[in-house]
Amino acid sequence: MQGIARAHTNIALIKYWGKRDKELFLPMNSSLSLTLDAFYTDTKVIFAANLSQDEFYLNGAPNDALPISRFLNLFRQDMPTFYHARVDSYNFVPTAAGLASSASAFAALAGAANIASQLNLDPTTLSTYARRGSGSATRSLFGGFVEWSKGTSSATSCAHYLDDASWNIGMIIIVVNTTKKTISSRSGMEHTVQTSPFYSAWVESATNDLEHMKHAIANKDFQKLGELTEYNGMKMHGTMLGSNPPFCYFEPESIVAQQQVRQLREKGIPAYITMDAGPNVKILCRASDMEQIKQHLLTVFDEKNIIATLPGKAMRELTEIEWQQSCHNFKEHNLWQ
Amino acid sequence: MQGIARAHTNIALIKYWGKRDKELFLPMNSSLSLTLDAFYTDTKVIFAANLSQDEFYLNGAPNDALPISRFLNLFRQDMPTFYHARVDSYNFVPTAAGLASSASAFAALAGAANIASQLNLDPTTLSTYARRGSGSATRSLFGGFVEWSKGTSSATSCAHYLDDASWNIGMIIIVVNTTKKTISSRSGMEHTVQTSPFYSAWVESATNDLEHMKHAIANKDFQKLGELTEYNGMKMHGTMLGSNPPFCYFEPESIVAQQQVRQLREKGIPAYITMDAGPNVKILCRASDMEQIKQHLLTVFDEKNIIATLPGKAMRELTEIEWQQSCHNFKEHNLWQ
Repeated sequence: MQGIARAHTNIALIKYWGKRDKELFLPMNSSLSLTLDAFYTDTKVIFAANLSQDEFYLNGAPNDALPISRFLNLFRQDMPTFYHARVDSYNFVPTAAGLASSASAFAALAGAANIASQLNLDPTTLSTYARRGSGSATRSLFGGFVEWSKGTSSATSCAHYLDDASWNIGMIIIVVNTTKKTISSRSGMEHTVQTSPFYSAWVESATNDLEHMKHAIANKDFQKLGELTEYNGMKMHGTMLGSNPPFCYFEPESIVAQQQVRQLREKGIPAYITMDAGPNVKILCRASDMEQIKQHLLTVFDEKNIIATLPGKAMRELTEIEWQQSCHNFKEHNLWQ
Repeated sequence: MQGIARAHTNIALIKYWGKRDKELFLPMNSSLSLTLDAFYTDTKVIFAANLSQDEFYLNGAPNDALPISRFLNLFRQDMPTFYHARVDSYNFVPTAAGLASSASAFAALAGAANIASQLNLDPTTLSTYARRGSGSATRSLFGGFVEWSKGTSSATSCAHYLDDASWNIGMIIIVVNTTKKTISSRSGMEHTVQTSPFYSAWVESATNDLEHMKHAIANKDFQKLGELTEYNGMKMHGTMLGSNPPFCYFEPESIVAQQQVRQLREKGIPAYITMDAGPNVKILCRASDMEQIKQHLLTVFDEKNIIATLPGKAMRELTEIEWQQSCHNFKEHNLWQ
């Protein structure tokens, strides 16, 4: 009873910001993301009768198995026999990039557990399981542009595929160094929901933004897509400045990056920013402009802090050979540590 | 028919952000400010029959008289005879400090015109005249903590004195260099009113903040005053991040300054930030802590960019001797150019 899967991380263009149910990870508003090719998690799950407890190895080293155990229980409650599991996971996500590897991690774990458990859930149902590990993992079951509908229950708060984003779309991540621990997205969103007078307007207008963005994607209207991305992302950060006490994820370099993107637009290169619960700046751009944008950014940022990526594909099963190759790649060439 | 007056600038602790009447400068919400001792404008108005047009000299040099003419018409409409005026003004406000010298400028002009016109308006009525020159000028008629009530008409949208702020209150301004022209507060607030989904919540919660701040001032509760200052100011900036397209007055150094103030609080020194329609950061603090705060800031900022000030007094008439002294001081020792 074994399963291996790869899932990519994603960046929300319409942000998930605020839960209506903390236990079930039910969001206040629907969101929309772009899955990214460059960052992914490979995970193998083995359910076996001879294991006396759950074991979890992250990047080859033993790690806390408790969140994994809780997550696997979602599958085990529907399995005829209870088995403990051994989980091996390799994160091809730069730790320092603040890219929330929990999205790809729980999507890959859901994918591998689905195979190992022989439950054979469809991807949409599986996305409701991934959601229980981490909200943004919901969207990592699919490739390209993905919508996470907030739904009306745990069973209906699921992701679905919108578009493969194969129309000259790219993303550049500027990694902004920060010495201090930032506020977790979990506590940031809780504080915002509880104290920001802007929160209800956020939910209402994000819902509106999502509809407009779906139209922009259907029409392959890149400018509209970019404008909505920047509008929605900055608006989320506005809700935080409105919290009491206020908080802000911007670092000095985040502002520098924002200014660089405005300069790019003034030069006629369409590029739009988005930011999550951290100081990094993500640039939505044309894939064909990525090299030129990178050159522009190199005047201000180090090459190692500029990461370009194309859209990524859906969660998929890996063969044992691919898995061995992946383990080998991680150990031999791991650039991310 | 001559009048000379001095008025100080002020920094809003509950911000004025948005007009309900652009012609009359009627604000959407009431605001509350601290008048500052260090920055002021001295202005002399002479109405004379032998002048064939209005003349305006700023800091000793001829300047555009049109805004002055329009403003003086408010007084001239109630004067028995129409006279042209000569206006001389010296701005003791660092141009680069982004401190909106229009507040002290129109308050001093109103004060001088009030004397020269012999209309002898009381300060509260005079504040409604100052308002027609620049919204924030309304509050510069009074010293210490000042409220500008939004009112229900042009006659009732006026300032009144709350407290002399003589209970160990100080303010430090960190001047943040910016190479680019920032968005004017006028167009910033117009864009916010028109496009930000947060705007109605801003008006409602700023009204609430004002009531709490008046209580804090009445109780001389510095911590509460500071917390409300930071909350309200950042919330205003949140409305801008929520605008479409979003905009932001933060420069990289603004974030550095914000981080420094958080460090100060962690060290047990009460200090709270506020920012206006520009990148500068103002720190509300205890007057007795100003030297220590300045030393802390000197590790990051240049001395010339750190300006400390005590609370300022109300607009007042100057004698001819004081005026001569002021002109002399400006020409001999002007540090602000």
